[in-house]
Amino acid sequence: MLDSVLIWVDKNRRRWLEDLQQWLAIPSVSTQQSHDADVAAAAEWAMFNLRGIGLTTELIPTARHPCVFATTPEGLCPPHAPHVLFYGHYDVQPAQIEDGWHTPPFKPTIKNGDLIARGASDDKGQVHAHLTALLAWREIASELPVRLTVLLEGEEEIGSLNLRTVIEQRISQLKSAQALIISDCNQFAPGVPAITCGLRGLMYYQIDVQGPVSDLHSGLFGGAVANPANALVEMLSRLHDGQGRVTVPGFYDDVASVDEALRQQWKELPFTDDQFAREAGITTPFGEAGYTTLERKWIRPTLDINGLWSGYQGPGAKTVLPARAGAKLSMRLVPNQDPQKIAAAFEAFVQQITPLGVTVNLTALGASPAALTPTDSPVMQAAAEALKIGFGQNPVYIREGGSIPVVGWFKEMLGVDAVMLGFGLPDDRIHGPNEKLNLECYYAGIRTAAALYDVLGHKLCGK
Amino acid sequence: MLDSVLIWVDKNRRRWLEDLQQWLAIPSVSTQQSHDADVAAAAEWAMFNLRGIGLTTELIPTARHPCVFATTPEGLCPPHAPHVLFYGHYDVQPAQIEDGWHTPPFKPTIKNGDLIARGASDDKGQVHAHLTALLAWREIASELPVRLTVLLEGEEEIGSLNLRTVIEQRISQLKSAQALIISDCNQFAPGVPAITCGLRGLMYYQIDVQGPVSDLHSGLFGGAVANPANALVEMLSRLHDGQGRVTVPGFYDDVASVDEALRQQWKELPFTDDQFAREAGITTPFGEAGYTTLERKWIRPTLDINGLWSGYQGPGAKTVLPARAGAKLSMRLVPNQDPQKIAAAFEAFVQQITPLGVTVNLTALGASPAALTPTDSPVMQAAAEALKIGFGQNPVYIREGGSIPVVGWFKEMLGVDAVMLGFGLPDDRIHGPNEKLNLECYYAGIRTAAALYDVLGHKLCGK
Repeated sequence: MLDSVLIWVDKNRRRWLEDLQQWLAIPSVSTQQSHDADVAAAAEWAMFNLRGIGLTTELIPTARHPCVFATTPEGLCPPHAPHVLFYGHYDVQPAQIEDGWHTPPFKPTIKNGDLIARGASDDKGQVHAHLTALLAWREIASELPVRLTVLLEGEEEIGSLNLRTVIEQRISQLKSAQALIISDCNQFAPGVPAITCGLRGLMYYQIDVQGPVSDLHSGLFGGAVANPANALVEMLSRLHDGQGRVTVPGFYDDVASVDEALRQQWKELPFTDDQFAREAGITTPFGEAGYTTLERKWIRPTLDINGLWSGYQGPGAKTVLPARAGAKLSMRLVPNQDPQKIAAAFEAFVQQITPLGVTVNLTALGASPAALTPTDSPVMQAAAEALKIGFGQNPVYIREGGSIPVVGWFKEMLGVDAVMLGFGLPDDRIHGPNEKLNLECYYAGIRTAAALYDVLGHKLCGK
Repeated sequence: MLDSVLIWVDKNRRRWLEDLQQWLAIPSVSTQQSHDADVAAAAEWAMFNLRGIGLTTELIPTARHPCVFATTPEGLCPPHAPHVLFYGHYDVQPAQIEDGWHTPPFKPTIKNGDLIARGASDDKGQVHAHLTALLAWREIASELPVRLTVLLEGEEEIGSLNLRTVIEQRISQLKSAQALIISDCNQFAPGVPAITCGLRGLMYYQIDVQGPVSDLHSGLFGGAVANPANALVEMLSRLHDGQGRVTVPGFYDDVASVDEALRQQWKELPFTDDQFAREAGITTPFGEAGYTTLERKWIRPTLDINGLWSGYQGPGAKTVLPARAGAKLSMRLVPNQDPQKIAAAFEAFVQQITPLGVTVNLTALGASPAALTPTDSPVMQAAAEALKIGFGQNPVYIREGGSIPVVGWFKEMLGVDAVMLGFGLPDDRIHGPNEKLNLECYYAGIRTAAALYDVLGHKLCGK
């Protein structure tokens, strides 16, 4: 039956692509209130699509953006089919053409075999590959190979603020899940499909520094008034030492050590610093002394400034002594680092290094631990088989530098490990301008998903 | 005759105020190209006003904004009247209501005895006091007490980019000037008129730091790619030491020492740190160790960040590893510091502290030396007499932290010292939101200017 499903999905590629483009055209930017209606519209779109598969849909409201929830009605799967949970997100990062996009970010454009749009890779395009595979099973086999629950959230890009609450509310419907499938990640390289077994966590802060009540003239007051921009850069500079290491006391205390054998395996992956530099648009990689590029991305924690602002940013000169300065910064956490412990250490350190003459306000904007998944479970084996069918290659087992907070929460609340198999590529420019999804990867993703649910249906015993 | 002039200017206050409000309503922001037409309109307005006084006007074009130039035709002053040059500027700093203005910055508003508008104090309001005094002489005495040349520039707020060229072009008309009058500064305090004998110079730079070609995802790339925002704050933080001193090598080498007696006189001025803190909107003054607040403002060089930008500045979290980061910064220079020498030292130091993995581009946005004027000349005495007449108080001799590049250039090119007598107050919020000019100060300024040209006419021998 899988063969018929695969033939059908391959034959109707144009249809899937047009359908996905509709979804991508909805600017569901979760962090900006001005896009609230678009976020709602993108959720509606997903509900409509899920009903087309025959699933029973429900919109779960939260304090901010709703979750899309879909379950398998009786008769749509074999009576004892295993219960599989699929998680994804329908919200996207902010994007404006001025950021450097060559085409409008919400006008999906096909160029050189890529589909270019905000959300193409992160995560609408990958979610859509699963929805398409499920639709194919419904159309060709009249039923799904597993008892599926779909949970799509609208707050992944803002730290999944309300997802824990939703999981708690629906714990009775979710706790029987035997597998958790997520496609919000990448292949290792073109032609090298991968299963992601580890993710870094994330802690995000905004720092606001206040100096004088109003902007002042830098000539009349300069030298005699604490400048909040000077103070901010002084503070931020003290968060790293000269070796690229984070100076927050205790930051590295609990960092998990990594097996030498594993580090050796990673060295054999098809990866070069030159290729990484090309993908990143840099001349040479840069980071903490003593680690390879992959290790810096996968198993070392970081502290990056994500935004900076103060005073005059326009053309020419303005001799203002600014009243305020601010920054956004995030820490990527690795296995065994406790977000609460790191948050306490960070906040205490910021207080300690606050210069005289200014006041500093810290706003926490999300915290999640790192995740690590064992590689020897039946679900993992099913994922490997599916990738082999979808991409024609055996997958490699990798980690990822990004963060999917929900992975840790599902583990904690449902006791289920996530299987993360991504259809994106490392150069998809997610969160940046000109985000894309390679069309061949998208189609291989549909095939992989079609195979995955089939193999899971056979491998897992239904409860 | 002066008495009649003073009576007439006092009687017609409403008229002067309405006239000034018209000028202030023109948003002549020289740094923003979108305001080029407004800058031109403000120049036109000044030309019209000067012709009303009977002066011969001319618009001198430059590569950017024109200079307004006016001379005294034969018959408008006594044949052997001394030649006096008045300099001012008709351009203003940027201002937007979002910056914290309580009323629209270009809708001049009267509140609690203050005239509130961008340019009210810096410098349209002060220039207008002179124009009004000259009009009064023309109306009441039918002639001016001196042979006047008026030079109003439209680029003071952007570093007087083309003024040197204009002075050179007009050197034959300017070189006979026996006095240079500037009112682009403050009284020392309410009821304490002042003559400003020293100004700090200014050197302004923009720093642009480039990391990756495009914004990247801080999870997927963080830790393995040099972050230009991290690099920028590291560089900027290295420009000061822990004592508030600038670390650019050689920065303090040539700083003029200041006479102990003078420092003692300054300590006796009606000035307290508490009052300064109130005016600045801060809780306590802050600056280089070992100096009083007045010394920090008047005789110590500074380095202040005037602007900062990078990455995401909107609400909420965006996990971007930014491609670019930038800053505007300015140094205030004091007597004997050579701008060219400081510029070379600064640029070399920035190169030296540029972190690995990013490229840095420096753009110079103006440089001018500090100025120091002797206090015992006949022109200075005339200014003191005029202030006594205008404000009813003997002036004090002070310095100022701000910069008026033209003062140094006139000294160099014409050999004439500037007499700087200001009608503003230290809390006028120039360059910040809610800039104001106290109306009583404005009227006293008109009286002072009326007296000044009279006394100069008597004190100086015409050539």
